[in-house]
Amino acid sequence: MIGVDLGGTKIAAGAIDRLGAITARRERPTPTSSQDELLAVLDEQVEQISAEVGGVEALGFGIPSTIDQRSGRAVSSVHVPLADLDFRSRMGERFELPVAIDNDGNAAAIAEWKLGAGAGARDMIMLTLGTGIGGGLILDGKPYRGSVGAGAELGHMVLQYDGPPCIGACPGRGHFEALASGTAADAVARSVLAPDATGRDLVRLAFEGDPRAKEALDGLARILGAGIASLVNVFNPEVIVIGGGFGRAGELLFSTVREVVAREALSPARELVRIVPAELGSEAGLVGAGLIAFEALDAR
Amino acid sequence: MIGVDLGGTKIAAGAIDRLGAITARRERPTPTSSQDELLAVLDEQVEQISAEVGGVEALGFGIPSTIDQRSGRAVSSVHVPLADLDFRSRMGERFELPVAIDNDGNAAAIAEWKLGAGAGARDMIMLTLGTGIGGGLILDGKPYRGSVGAGAELGHMVLQYDGPPCIGACPGRGHFEALASGTAADAVARSVLAPDATGRDLVRLAFEGDPRAKEALDGLARILGAGIASLVNVFNPEVIVIGGGFGRAGELLFSTVREVVAREALSPARELVRIVPAELGSEAGLVGAGLIAFEALDAR
Repeated sequence: MIGVDLGGTKIAAGAIDRLGAITARRERPTPTSSQDELLAVLDEQVEQISAEVGGVEALGFGIPSTIDQRSGRAVSSVHVPLADLDFRSRMGERFELPVAIDNDGNAAAIAEWKLGAGAGARDMIMLTLGTGIGGGLILDGKPYRGSVGAGAELGHMVLQYDGPPCIGACPGRGHFEALASGTAADAVARSVLAPDATGRDLVRLAFEGDPRAKEALDGLARILGAGIASLVNVFNPEVIVIGGGFGRAGELLFSTVREVVAREALSPARELVRIVPAELGSEAGLVGAGLIAFEALDAR
Repeated sequence: MIGVDLGGTKIAAGAIDRLGAITARRERPTPTSSQDELLAVLDEQVEQISAEVGGVEALGFGIPSTIDQRSGRAVSSVHVPLADLDFRSRMGERFELPVAIDNDGNAAAIAEWKLGAGAGARDMIMLTLGTGIGGGLILDGKPYRGSVGAGAELGHMVLQYDGPPCIGACPGRGHFEALASGTAADAVARSVLAPDATGRDLVRLAFEGDPRAKEALDGLARILGAGIASLVNVFNPEVIVIGGGFGRAGELLFSTVREVVAREALSPARELVRIVPAELGSEAGLVGAGLIAFEALDAR
């Protein structure tokens, strides 16, 4: 089965088996200049993996877009040029295979729930801290996608009323992902460290004990904690799984996040929730995309 | 069946039939000075309704508290002195009847979903704008309460990071209910109109065309719209039902709320969601409490 994780900065494509193991893998930067160029790279990735493993039965795509599952359309894509594309039909016709699509945050959540840090949970939330903040929800023992598949956009909760514009093409203001994503960490690094510094530098320096970097990272962690406290109050989940590149800051973020949740969320949800790092690392989205391809095949 | 809607300002108790009709009803102000006094009034209400209808088979309570459904405990009650009470056991022992308890927001949501503005919806959100903001979730065709029954606390989403303290005993800051509830409307009325004015005065004057009142109410509606836009992004619901005393400001709030959602939420969820007034008025909580009593009886 081929899974494709289309992210804001890279496209990972792989052959995934039923147990979620990756048996072939390719990666390319995400072209963001035009939809045609993006589709050309996606096609090439699928063809190459398919040739490598000798053909496949279904395709699964995790894409950074709201989706209308009734039509298989990518509707509102904040970080890549996918908007208003009949994605599922396009890929189905191009490859003459069953195609499943899901939001990239949902795909990562499904992988962590089936094989990773959320295994066994009935109610799980996943946050992927990358270019934006991807969200995924497992509620009452199954993925929750909303009435047409456009829900779980947890990065687009308002966290600062009348705050700064959201990133990418999102029309909102003061959204969670504008304030606590990898992109937000990059902006903080530029303002606190140096004009060309990145969130990665901020995390590295904080790990090394640099006080400015530690303080700045702690500020981001407090905002992240407020957003997570909201999610604890709204969902009373058993577990919140944090992944994504910026999520790898690990305990430098997590200890402050847990402190904020313990102080500001409501009891008993705040005592019961576990806040844990993702276990599948950067492969969660890819594995999840493969797993939904099996769903598409089985539903045939 | 007896349902009791325990609110921040009043306790309504009633006999409810299987179709949700109220066949007897009593109302008392909520004592907030002590837990003993509160329980005495609840007991009296149940006894009086029971005598009036010649006995009942089960009790249902909608209470303004997070609940741990494993134990039936009221854990974190922001507006009334219920905290840390083994509510379900206490009532079961006192009346020797099956007892169901639920958060008051969930009870109202269940009533609107079964009999009111959310009838037929698979994914519905209810907001009750009263002393606080009560929330209720119907997801994938059934009530969603969280892993132990403490979820759907939609009034306790952070909407203004590092904002003013939440109202009542909630330890959070900048929560939705601190900014857009009836209590928030009271505070705005006091600051804009007169030291003894209330949210009710604000709504009345706005209806009459008073420009200061209209502008102030519109400010509240924009905050409400931002919170609702968050919920649209998170849940992609078919319908959002708005009830509660402050919710009766109706189109004065709703037109601005719909405008904010159309502008700031993501597509396609923003076009698909219906934002509608509650249909059961102030009785939603009472009817919902009766309906969960039937659940308790049927589960026996």
